[in-house]
Amino acid sequence: MAAPHIARRMADIQPFHVMDLLARARVLEAQGRDIVHMEIGEPDFVTPQPIRAAAKRALDAGRTHYTPALGLPALREAISAFYRSDHGVEVPAERIIVTPGASGALLLTLGVLVNPDDEVLMADPGYPCNRHFTRLLEGKAVGVAVGAETDYQLTAELLDANWGERSIAALLASPSNPTGTLIPDDSLRAMQAVADERGGRLIVDEIYHGLVYEGHEGHSHTALAASDQLFVINSFSKYFCMTGMRLGWLVAPEDYVREIDKLAQNIFLAAPTLSQHAALAAFAPETRAILDEQREAFRARRDFLLPALRALGFDIPVTPQGAFYLYAGCSRFTDDSSAFADELLSQAGVCVTPGKDFGANAPGRHLRFAYTTAMSELEKGVERLASYLSA
Amino acid sequence: MAAPHIARRMADIQPFHVMDLLARARVLEAQGRDIVHMEIGEPDFVTPQPIRAAAKRALDAGRTHYTPALGLPALREAISAFYRSDHGVEVPAERIIVTPGASGALLLTLGVLVNPDDEVLMADPGYPCNRHFTRLLEGKAVGVAVGAETDYQLTAELLDANWGERSIAALLASPSNPTGTLIPDDSLRAMQAVADERGGRLIVDEIYHGLVYEGHEGHSHTALAASDQLFVINSFSKYFCMTGMRLGWLVAPEDYVREIDKLAQNIFLAAPTLSQHAALAAFAPETRAILDEQREAFRARRDFLLPALRALGFDIPVTPQGAFYLYAGCSRFTDDSSAFADELLSQAGVCVTPGKDFGANAPGRHLRFAYTTAMSELEKGVERLASYLSA
Repeated sequence: MAAPHIARRMADIQPFHVMDLLARARVLEAQGRDIVHMEIGEPDFVTPQPIRAAAKRALDAGRTHYTPALGLPALREAISAFYRSDHGVEVPAERIIVTPGASGALLLTLGVLVNPDDEVLMADPGYPCNRHFTRLLEGKAVGVAVGAETDYQLTAELLDANWGERSIAALLASPSNPTGTLIPDDSLRAMQAVADERGGRLIVDEIYHGLVYEGHEGHSHTALAASDQLFVINSFSKYFCMTGMRLGWLVAPEDYVREIDKLAQNIFLAAPTLSQHAALAAFAPETRAILDEQREAFRARRDFLLPALRALGFDIPVTPQGAFYLYAGCSRFTDDSSAFADELLSQAGVCVTPGKDFGANAPGRHLRFAYTTAMSELEKGVERLASYLSA
Repeated sequence: MAAPHIARRMADIQPFHVMDLLARARVLEAQGRDIVHMEIGEPDFVTPQPIRAAAKRALDAGRTHYTPALGLPALREAISAFYRSDHGVEVPAERIIVTPGASGALLLTLGVLVNPDDEVLMADPGYPCNRHFTRLLEGKAVGVAVGAETDYQLTAELLDANWGERSIAALLASPSNPTGTLIPDDSLRAMQAVADERGGRLIVDEIYHGLVYEGHEGHSHTALAASDQLFVINSFSKYFCMTGMRLGWLVAPEDYVREIDKLAQNIFLAAPTLSQHAALAAFAPETRAILDEQREAFRARRDFLLPALRALGFDIPVTPQGAFYLYAGCSRFTDDSSAFADELLSQAGVCVTPGKDFGANAPGRHLRFAYTTAMSELEKGVERLASYLSA
């Protein structure tokens, strides 16, 4: 029997370390322990009723076949109308590609851009899959350390300083996971100018778009307001609370749409049909009313958790304006945040994500707290942390 | 403005040429023309009612969050039970990975196996996405010309003759798209022996599994009966008529499951939740009764279309035992099957797929006919072909 032949890339692709913590939390729960979950990267809210009702209507109507590879035309139009009505930006439906999750959008984008050994710049800390997708395609993810001084975001200066011979793109995120910060308009325009000058592309992850609680002044909702030459990745998972539907979208520069269509036909055939019909109801006023109420719940949770963690001694120098995460320095307590997260789980009954899931920039001194659980749970979690840390 | 930087792989990734024909067919239909569709690679049947009912129950129950990356445990168990009850093969649920379509299974398999410039052997004609997935990952697809003498399948002799220094796997399909033929058990075992000797892997596409009309003697339903060291890719799309649900599965050798889990977490997060809950109803007796009736409808269509096309002068030397395709030699009429398919559409109102969608092995002398439309449509199509070809 052959020893397993495993592609080299797999040595560079890390699992989500938090999955091990979550598994251990489940074991503790099965033993009767109560655990506060502040590690989970998806909204706790069920998909809104009008969206579920639309899925049921599609099932009744027998809409169970493939859609075109670029997506249901009506949904592409609806997304275009959403950009117009909500953000005042004209994005023709022809440039909008409906994808199996934002993951699908990222794979398509990097698939049409990245040659082997091409470099993609990205912020560290950042969403770990970004570097793994790049590696999957034999490109090189170049993590650029960012900190409080740039709101944990890349800047034109950082792009300029890190752009090399083989750099072809920079991947940005606004709001960012794990830090919840935004990219100011003027900074985005300056980065687009660097990309233009270097003949590269910006890829902007806007999957937490819609979950922004303040700081709109000087921050457009979408990078598409700045340029039609960048790629924007979005998702129905976060603001729209449709994680299980696995549906996202990509806005691409016009010149790339044909190539993306070709790739999507081959690697996905199409995004899930039912999810696409369901998503047609995502923009309806009754759905938006529910979603906006849920956004206010996220805001209230942030407004509780942020000062509470600061008071406990966690270092959160920049107030996160969006998403549902707080990226907290924990150097007052430890320089091994993974062991610390283990302790918090087993001793305090609080599950959080250690920094090492987000890169190589001081991961041992950071934890990510997600406020994707009810206020009462957050309150309980903070009490437990207070009592554990003062013991 | 920068000229578009497009990755080199995209020059090797072809669109489905039939999509252009289909688009032209839609234009003709909009003009009032009646078109017989024999190009479409998905069942015409709507997803069976019990599966749709299960999806609706999941929606009502609010099952809208992510599942584990490897799939809903209950579904992995149900697939394992299906192998046991239907095929008498023990496949532990731990080796079964639920994926976003068979496409997802193929990407995971090649992702963990293929280094840049590694070769994957595959039959030509064959499913075009196989070579495109290989190219996406910077591997090299090696098409091996197959013909009637081997039932359009690879054999141990062909593997031996084509296996090179950089070959790491062979991709087989049973039943095959576009030819509908099966791999006999003894041939599969001989190919596994070659793979073992060479230190490589077989990847067996069984997505038309369940749609087999004859020839079970000497043909197991699944390659898993022959070895636990090969990869098997399957789908809920074809026999189960769930194309729009985008759900498939992968059975992997035990040693690979951890690597696949890691990759799935990063590139998919998970398969669509609703589709997974729906699929739990796919194995219920009432669903199976519907599916088996639909399989008999496919059989009746094949039994009509095969002799009818032969009588018209199409060359179909091997009787296809499964799937829903006839791969027909058309050299009596043309050596440019793409132009011929254009003519058949515009002149005869019959849409079929030209050979060039399936590889480089005499594509100009072949067409693929799909019997994914009602018998009355097939009859009309044959009449139109008869009248056009005799004119």
